[in-house]
Amino acid sequence: MKIDINVDMGESFGRYILGDDESLMPYVTSANIATGFHAGDPLVLERTIKWAKEYGVAVGAHLGLPDRQGFGRRQMDISTEELRTDTLYQLGAMDAFLKVHGLKMQHVKPHGILYRMVGEQEKYIDTFLDTIEEYNKDLYIMLHTGCETLKRAQARGLKTAPEVLIDLGYDQNGNWMLERVKKARSPQDVADRAVVVVKEKKIDTIDGKMIHVDGCTVCIHGDSPNAVSVAKAVRNSLESNGISVTNLDGYFSK
Amino acid sequence: MKIDINVDMGESFGRYILGDDESLMPYVTSANIATGFHAGDPLVLERTIKWAKEYGVAVGAHLGLPDRQGFGRRQMDISTEELRTDTLYQLGAMDAFLKVHGLKMQHVKPHGILYRMVGEQEKYIDTFLDTIEEYNKDLYIMLHTGCETLKRAQARGLKTAPEVLIDLGYDQNGNWMLERVKKARSPQDVADRAVVVVKEKKIDTIDGKMIHVDGCTVCIHGDSPNAVSVAKAVRNSLESNGISVTNLDGYFSK
Amino acid sequence: MKIDINVDMGESFGRYILGDDESLMPYVTSANIATGFHAGDPLVLERTIKWAKEYGVAVGAHLGLPDRQGFGRRQMDISTEELRTDTLYQLGAMDAFLKVHGLKMQHVKPHGILYRMVGEQEKYIDTFLDTIEEYNKDLYIMLHTGCETLKRAQARGLKTAPEVLIDLGYDQNGNWMLERVKKARSPQDVADRAVVVVKEKKIDTIDGKMIHVDGCTVCIHGDSPNAVSVAKAVRNSLESNGISVTNLDGYFSK
Amino acid sequence: MKIDINVDMGESFGRYILGDDESLMPYVTSANIATGFHAGDPLVLERTIKWAKEYGVAVGAHLGLPDRQGFGRRQMDISTEELRTDTLYQLGAMDAFLKVHGLKMQHVKPHGILYRMVGEQEKYIDTFLDTIEEYNKDLYIMLHTGCETLKRAQARGLKTAPEVLIDLGYDQNGNWMLERVKKARSPQDVADRAVVVVKEKKIDTIDGKMIHVDGCTVCIHGDSPNAVSVAKAVRNSLESNGISVTNLDGYFSK
Repeated sequence: MKIDINVDMGESFGRYILGDDESLMPYVTSANIATGFHAGDPLVLERTIKWAKEYGVAVGAHLGLPDRQGFGRRQMDISTEELRTDTLYQLGAMDAFLKVHGLKMQHVKPHGILYRMVGEQEKYIDTFLDTIEEYNKDLYIMLHTGCETLKRAQARGLKTAPEVLIDLGYDQNGNWMLERVKKARSPQDVADRAVVVVKEKKIDTIDGKMIHVDGCTVCIHGDSPNAVSVAKAVRNSLESNGISVTNLDGYFSK
Repeated sequence: MKIDINVDMGESFGRYILGDDESLMPYVTSANIATGFHAGDPLVLERTIKWAKEYGVAVGAHLGLPDRQGFGRRQMDISTEELRTDTLYQLGAMDAFLKVHGLKMQHVKPHGILYRMVGEQEKYIDTFLDTIEEYNKDLYIMLHTGCETLKRAQARGLKTAPEVLIDLGYDQNGNWMLERVKKARSPQDVADRAVVVVKEKKIDTIDGKMIHVDGCTVCIHGDSPNAVSVAKAVRNSLESNGISVTNLDGYFSK
Repeated sequence: MKIDINVDMGESFGRYILGDDESLMPYVTSANIATGFHAGDPLVLERTIKWAKEYGVAVGAHLGLPDRQGFGRRQMDISTEELRTDTLYQLGAMDAFLKVHGLKMQHVKPHGILYRMVGEQEKYIDTFLDTIEEYNKDLYIMLHTGCETLKRAQARGLKTAPEVLIDLGYDQNGNWMLERVKKARSPQDVADRAVVVVKEKKIDTIDGKMIHVDGCTVCIHGDSPNAVSVAKAVRNSLESNGISVTNLDGYFSK
Repeated sequence: MKIDINVDMGESFGRYILGDDESLMPYVTSANIATGFHAGDPLVLERTIKWAKEYGVAVGAHLGLPDRQGFGRRQMDISTEELRTDTLYQLGAMDAFLKVHGLKMQHVKPHGILYRMVGEQEKYIDTFLDTIEEYNKDLYIMLHTGCETLKRAQARGLKTAPEVLIDLGYDQNGNWMLERVKKARSPQDVADRAVVVVKEKKIDTIDGKMIHVDGCTVCIHGDSPNAVSVAKAVRNSLESNGISVTNLDGYFSK
């Protein structure tokens, strides 16, 4: 049994500190690092990549809408050409830092409302996949397990990283709820959910049901007030239940 | 006798059109394309790179300060760490587009006041050179002929592209004058200057002297109202004077 | 017979010039001046207000979404609280300049997609009206004739300025078509339409019909390539047809 | 004996929370609220003004450079016209919120490096004073005690609020040291300094001297980690030493 743990990082901006990235690193195997549109800036980007390197955490591009004030959470009707060029711009920007630090980008994950736009909205799905395929077909595409975009990505032969959001509420249709400002959840509750997700491929819903989920990675939100405690509890519970915590390449290796 | 012609391009932004880039392309051998900080945006960046490819024009990164309102012309006391990370971010962003179009970045040139900061201000010189050397030591560094930074770049064994600004006024110390909004100059005057620059390694000053200049490339500002006429006249005059117009690789090849 | 002519102005930004505002001023009675979110900047804002004062043109706030790259044309799902506070911020910013120049704000008009959001989308209508009413109930609200928001504004006793878009295409349901980059239209065609709009309260549609329209003001888009010729033709045709061209206070005075 | 306590507030931005403004309000008499250039946004601006109203704290405009990434701390060579128009824009934006809440702006204070530019750099001093005088001559101008700008303001008959920075280090020439990220200081130390500043008109320097200072207000930086404790200690120590804590109108009333 194996699982990857991914966390959003690099969301600080200038004077504004968001999240305690360095403290999270020991518990995480994949870092989704903001690429400077919805959050982050070049200084923060390099600093976070350096931490990832130091702690042996795989790096992914956390792409966002060009809306820092809205933190990439306000739907914007960008054109498909804008989706393509905003995506390339952000991927390249991150790759410059990875290059000078001798690292490779492991995955790409859209942030905030872009996660839904690219994962669910017909207008954007194929453009997003075209862009990733054209730029770097070795990138894992990290999106919610079961979404249409992952299905099409697999059909194209692209690498996918279906994820489960273990610190968010689910309804019985498998929809999750976004929260503007993350609330603190009990670390052990999240950790217990993670174990069930891996062992039983199930997660509980807000109305007390259990639904099927199937992911190679579980997501912890780095901007919740107790993110470090949650990440530590999840890591410890997984390992003490005999589950190997590894990044995506480790997960998919035989 | 050979010379490269470089022009700033890709400075449009969203609804704002600046310069007639496509019309300039036939006369130019090196395009300094804005990388989205002081000017340009991802959509403009890709469109301009496509034109450069179509017309066989070599592409360089036109780096700017993060100040779109000031068009990168207002000195900002950024830290050296910010210079480093802003530079890497912009270089990488451009390289993503070059990669998908099968092109290589030829050169890097700072824009506006960053041209002076990086070319003349002690605080920034070495950080700039370190960053370019670390990211891609095959890049030509395009700056004003004779500046301190080019001297140090050569001492390090980096590639340099000293330039002459044939559409700006010079004083007798070799200093040039920036203009907030470019005025139209007679295309033939600029063309005649270009020929003298190449044949005699001299340029006239505002007080009627001739000073020595030595460059492998001449710059025409793409945002002047008659930039296309100027570029055409320069290209034609150079060629009709037996001067070969070629990009930087052509210039430095035997 | 009377009519107001309104034009969007103050859309330049830093180095980027958009429209020839000063040349338009002699033909216009109401200027919709960008308030710095989708277009314009503080320097441009004051310069445009000074021209309006010089030419005796009434000033209105042209409010936009906080999206300069998209020129306020990309729908953003801002909250109603954000609509309220973005509106107040922009109105106040403009009022500072009007205060030092001894002028009063005549009207408010949303720009781009905000024109539709505020004029047609249920989510935003009442918040917009609440905000205007709370800030300054003497402002005319300029929106498309017949829209829901104008009806509710009138029901509240607010001042309204229903407008007709004489340089855009209409379908037979009274919907108009936005164009990303304005095309040049024949000045005389637009002028003839203006006269018919005032005299007959009708406008032609793209499929050759005539539909009823009833406005106190006609809009000319200032960013079309021939905006000045259009404005001149419209003004001249209106006046030579015995129609008095006047700002909103003039229109509504007995 | 009287003194005003001023604190920077309203520096949060979108998802980014900076400072605990509401908790600070009970101890403060003047709030310097960010006007959206270097920090803050329209939503934060109104929220902070509402708190100020609720707690009876006087409101001032905390003006900044248009550089959110640098938090207004990187010197930018803006023109004097830009200083004028950026100032008017921000003052007006804030006044819109004050108007709908029935409040008046008490003072204006530049933030970060603008504090030095406007308080010390010859290029900017008179333009700043001209702008304030033209916009609203009832505003107190809050700057460091003894600076050139305050002298000229007094000579013009403008209202001034000289301040002492009780949580920063001073050298023996009266210069203070800025810190990129505020360090926590002992609340009681700051409080003791405040009492000495009021009673003896003196403050200690980093090299153990005492220098003369004369202010009507003491500043506490709201973005230090223990700002609330500091503010509470300062307020309590002042009052238990028989010093009346009051806003600027209270301070200057007979």
